Amino acid sequence: MSRSDGDPSPAVPDFERRVPPGDSVVRDVCARCGFVAYENPKIVVGSVVRVGEKVLLCRRAIEPSHGLWTLPAGFMELGETPEGGARREAREEALAEIEIRDLLAVYTIPRISQVQLIYRAGLSGGFAPGEESLEVALFAPDEIPWAELAFASVHWALTQEARWHAGEATGPFVNPPEGL
Amino acid sequence: MSRSDGDPSPAVPDFERRVPPGDSVVRDVCARCGFVAYENPKIVVGSVVRVGEKVLLCRRAIEPSHGLWTLPAGFMELGETPEGGARREAREEALAEIEIRDLLAVYTIPRISQVQLIYRAGLSGGFAPGEESLEVALFAPDEIPWAELAFASVHWALTQEARWHAGEATGPFVNPPEGL
Ligand SMILES: [Zn+2]
Ligand SMILES: [Zn+2]
Repeated sequence: MSRSDGDPSPAVPDFERRVPPGDSVVRDVCARCGFVAYENPKIVVGSVVRVGEKVLLCRRAIEPSHGLWTLPAGFMELGETPEGGARREAREEALAEIEIRDLLAVYTIPRISQVQLIYRAGLSGGFAPGEESLEVALFAPDEIPWAELAFASVHWALTQEARWHAGEATGPFVNPPEGL
Repeated sequence: MSRSDGDPSPAVPDFERRVPPGDSVVRDVCARCGFVAYENPKIVVGSVVRVGEKVLLCRRAIEPSHGLWTLPAGFMELGETPEGGARREAREEALAEIEIRDLLAVYTIPRISQVQLIYRAGLSGGFAPGEESLEVALFAPDEIPWAELAFASVHWALTQEARWHAGEATGPFVNPPEGL
C-alpha cells in the first residue's frame, strides 16, 4: 500500500514500555516486531589540538549549535579505539592529522546519555574546514570565543587543557564541580 | 494468531543491511518496522579495589566465564557517571562500598565493541558475594589466580594497577601492546 504522492509510507517502530522476555528492567520494545531498544550511553571522542600557545577550533556547519565553535569531536564508531575515533573526527571536521598525547578528560552528560573522552593532541601539518565545519582556526588564549562556544563541555575542555598546559594540574579531569 | 501450545510466537525484528533515510552509512534496518539499529560501542565500568597489598576479585556465577575470577564491572546505565556505575557494580557483585581514586585504564575490545573504563578504588567496610558472584575474596600478589581469570582485560588491569601501586608507572593505561 503506497500513498498517492508516490512515496511509500516509511515503516516506523511502535515502541511500548515493558520488560522484555528474560530481562528484569522496563525497556522500549517495539509492539510490531519485538525489537528491544537497549539504551546505552553513547561515547563521544574528541581532542583539544594545541599548536604552541594556540588551540584549534571548528565553527559548526551543522545543527545543533550551527555557527558556534567546537572541538573536533563526534560519536565513536564500531571497530575503532577512542584515540582512533578522535583522529578520524579531526580528519573529517578539520582535515587535520593529529597526534594523540594524553587523555584530557572523561565528561558525563546524563541528559543526553553521553560519555565524552577528550584527548590532548598535537597537529602534524595543516588544516581546513571539512564538510561539517564553516571555518577552522587557531586561537591564542585571549582570542578564544568564549561566548560563542557550541557546548559547555568545550568550555570545560579548553579551561582544563590550559591548566594542564600551564603545569597547574594534570588530568584526566571530569566535569567541573558546578559548570565553571 | 497464537500457536496451539498456548504461547504466542514472539515478534522478532527482520533486519536487512541498508542505508536508512537521511544517513550515509549502511546500517541494520528492520524490514518490518523501519527501526534503525545504530550500533554504538558499549561502555563497561569497573574497578580494581585495593586493600593494602591485596586486591578484590569476584568469582562469576553467570556466563560467560562462569566460575572464573573477575573485577567488579558491568555495563554503564543511563543517568549515571562512569564512577557511579563502577560503585554500583561493586555494590551489586561484591556487596561492597568503594571509593573511586583514579582512572586506571581505558581499554577497547573491538570484537565485542566495548570500551572499558576501569578505576583504582579503595574499600569502605566489608564485602560478600552478590547475586552474580559465587565468591568474593582478597588476593595478595602471589595468590592471584592468573590461570583462572575471566577475561584478558582483568589480566591487564591487575598487572597495570600493580605497576601503578608499586610506583613504576602511572595511568590511565590502554590495552597493552600485545596482550601481556
Ligand atoms: Zn519494530
Ligand atoms: Zn522491526
